[in-house]
Amino acid sequence: MFAEKGANLVLVARRKEKLVSVKESILAMFPNVSIRYELCDMTQVTQIDALVERLADTQVDIIVNNAGLALGTESGDRVAIEDVITMFNTNVIGVMTLTNRIAPQMRSRNSGDIVNIGSVAGSDHYAGGAIYCATKSAIDAYTDCLRMDLVETNIRVIGINPGLVSGTEFSLVRFRGDSQLASAPYKGLECLTAMDVADQVLYAVTRPHNVQIAQLNSYCTHQGHAKYVIARD
Amino acid sequence: MFAEKGANLVLVARRKEKLVSVKESILAMFPNVSIRYELCDMTQVTQIDALVERLADTQVDIIVNNAGLALGTESGDRVAIEDVITMFNTNVIGVMTLTNRIAPQMRSRNSGDIVNIGSVAGSDHYAGGAIYCATKSAIDAYTDCLRMDLVETNIRVIGINPGLVSGTEFSLVRFRGDSQLASAPYKGLECLTAMDVADQVLYAVTRPHNVQIAQLNSYCTHQGHAKYVIARD
Amino acid sequence: MFAEKGANLVLVARRKEKLVSVKESILAMFPNVSIRYELCDMTQVTQIDALVERLADTQVDIIVNNAGLALGTESGDRVAIEDVITMFNTNVIGVMTLTNRIAPQMRSRNSGDIVNIGSVAGSDHYAGGAIYCATKSAIDAYTDCLRMDLVETNIRVIGINPGLVSGTEFSLVRFRGDSQLASAPYKGLECLTAMDVADQVLYAVTRPHNVQIAQLNSYCTHQGHAKYVIARD
Amino acid sequence: MFAEKGANLVLVARRKEKLVSVKESILAMFPNVSIRYELCDMTQVTQIDALVERLADTQVDIIVNNAGLALGTESGDRVAIEDVITMFNTNVIGVMTLTNRIAPQMRSRNSGDIVNIGSVAGSDHYAGGAIYCATKSAIDAYTDCLRMDLVETNIRVIGINPGLVSGTEFSLVRFRGDSQLASAPYKGLECLTAMDVADQVLYAVTRPHNVQIAQLNSYCTHQGHAKYVIARD
Repeated sequence: MFAEKGANLVLVARRKEKLVSVKESILAMFPNVSIRYELCDMTQVTQIDALVERLADTQVDIIVNNAGLALGTESGDRVAIEDVITMFNTNVIGVMTLTNRIAPQMRSRNSGDIVNIGSVAGSDHYAGGAIYCATKSAIDAYTDCLRMDLVETNIRVIGINPGLVSGTEFSLVRFRGDSQLASAPYKGLECLTAMDVADQVLYAVTRPHNVQIAQLNSYCTHQGHAKYVIARD
Repeated sequence: MFAEKGANLVLVARRKEKLVSVKESILAMFPNVSIRYELCDMTQVTQIDALVERLADTQVDIIVNNAGLALGTESGDRVAIEDVITMFNTNVIGVMTLTNRIAPQMRSRNSGDIVNIGSVAGSDHYAGGAIYCATKSAIDAYTDCLRMDLVETNIRVIGINPGLVSGTEFSLVRFRGDSQLASAPYKGLECLTAMDVADQVLYAVTRPHNVQIAQLNSYCTHQGHAKYVIARD
Repeated sequence: MFAEKGANLVLVARRKEKLVSVKESILAMFPNVSIRYELCDMTQVTQIDALVERLADTQVDIIVNNAGLALGTESGDRVAIEDVITMFNTNVIGVMTLTNRIAPQMRSRNSGDIVNIGSVAGSDHYAGGAIYCATKSAIDAYTDCLRMDLVETNIRVIGINPGLVSGTEFSLVRFRGDSQLASAPYKGLECLTAMDVADQVLYAVTRPHNVQIAQLNSYCTHQGHAKYVIARD
Repeated sequence: MFAEKGANLVLVARRKEKLVSVKESILAMFPNVSIRYELCDMTQVTQIDALVERLADTQVDIIVNNAGLALGTESGDRVAIEDVITMFNTNVIGVMTLTNRIAPQMRSRNSGDIVNIGSVAGSDHYAGGAIYCATKSAIDAYTDCLRMDLVETNIRVIGINPGLVSGTEFSLVRFRGDSQLASAPYKGLECLTAMDVADQVLYAVTRPHNVQIAQLNSYCTHQGHAKYVIARD
């Protein structure tokens, strides 16, 4: 969608084959777009720094912080601490690090959009989601405070917080590869798709320069809460 | 904007001259749209009932509950009770009454969008806004609960919560006709406009049927809080 | 409990027999306390005014706004508008009116405590609670804003928001006298009691003058959400 | 205060001289209390594990997670990443780790209180507080979810969220040792004290077994928001 609007894209992720495949899909639809991909594990500050260095000559107009990792649905006291640390590094520290590295060029141009993909889990707390909800609440607060911090600049700080999104690896990772468990939350439900979320990001960043979408919470039509109010067929 | 998309509009407000003028502006741009206006004071249940009767044969696909009245900026304990009642009747009871009257036809068709225009004052509480913030918090809660209540239907329940919007009579009413006081909050600030808010409503209601925009909070780019974080020139 | 601490009490409610019985229970335990009761329907501004006139010579150190009415558990769009109005008049407008009438004497003495009994329903929204949650969210916002409004005074503004409280008529009223339905939410659960809530109010108002309990949310030990997370035997 | 109630205390902190001095102060007032202190840097999982091992034979009835570190007041994008990591390790990961290690013995006894000291900064977001607010929002969410996770047990999960507390090293650390800057937030204000916060913890843990204080937000009497509404002399 961004490609369609003529943006030049830098795709960042850990796995080359994923990036190549996304790049090819986009090029098939929009052959004239310039797409670059960069390998980076967002939990590693040194890798983020190397990425930023490779982007040194690139004007970054928009950052979309999209890492969102949930590991398990154990009770909050039973989540392994290494999983806690991985979730915080991915969902929170990585976002803050990339923002820290890219904001200076946005500040010096006095323009840019910082888009943090949160979740309705940031406001809808639930049993089995203690660490994930904590990371997303942290991102909500960071997004709100950063917007205040940058209020004198033209930089916009945008939070996009979707409900259940199907068709991604999110649930497969959460349920550690058990595809049956992983598919349960989406069963009998026409969920949001990754395209729906991208559409929201696109909407936010294409608004007139005076309009700052601050927090956009969405569900699919048959969902009313992150966990407790879902109508399946 | 709705006119542009081909919707047929029923404009509802208290003052005929306002309605005529809005109707003419829209027709000048979109001559083929069918526009009807209806006089109704949303604080009067009997007037809402008469309105609903006049609309008995009209399929209502979208309700946009847009009444938002603030009277004064006194300390919460000092607001005259008649003003408290007027604000609740306008901002809350009117919305609930119209929803109560129109929802049955939406339920029987199993489709429709209910859009409640709240405010960032629903979540950003501030000194001088006790009653207004209370009405908007009430609407936020109503919107969230109603979305859960209707989770098994295809009806979507949407909250749109803008920050400072200039170019309306909102502030003039709040400051009881004192145009100098009324203009102060907007000074040195490129605010949201009524068109920006309409654009958000339009965005929400034109999403694919699976996508339910739940709460969309926005500010203008130099605003970070309903009252406390605003950067004026 | 207040009686035990030596306060003089003015009990206010609609029903004389209730007031007499509460008065007698308290006197049985604390024979030296001065207790007065006043009949007043808090939904009637004129009755509140008459009450305030009868209290004209009484120094009011603490107001405890305890009216909390839920009618029904229908979907938000289906609650009868007269019930909506009754709930807002009782839970919100009555509180604001009494505060409006008593605050001047607190302001002139520069002391006093305003205690608003909300509910966890002010922050935990749920299906079937649209109007009740809206009233309690309104009170939360009012309490927060009023605290800011009075920040230069020594008046403290306190919100006490309990979860399920058994042993009151709350549920019987909600379920319109159906005692079987009314008892269901409390079954297999050791709930909070009215005494537990009174204890929280007492705790708040007996803190040193520098300490302002702002919002105190509580559940019983086997409750984690207003509606969705409750462990019954 | 806990000492006064006859509890046996294990004080945990990084600095021996601090611990010795606190221990001596308590013993001077309550000579019969058993007090033990343990050195532990809560940002180090291995140190927490060593601590837990040393406590292997100790029944822990109450955990009070009190670490709360703010470093700086820079804009969120400008906080050094090492400071971000230190704040999250101290305020969030340390709390989750200790809870993870102690909860099993509480679960096996089916009793215990987990008290997390948050801050009003968890709900009042402000410019200059991006990382600190994010850590405290994370703790609020963790506390709420963990309470739901443990709803079938008798373990209570309690959040205590004070506003400005004077007389601690919090501000001196935040302002990196600059005592003039550090004292500014407290000037002309009778703040909460560490004793006031301890009193709230004591209140929560001494309630009857059915009462679960969930979140207790407090300010001092002349404070109405973490940052924006404070009345100084």
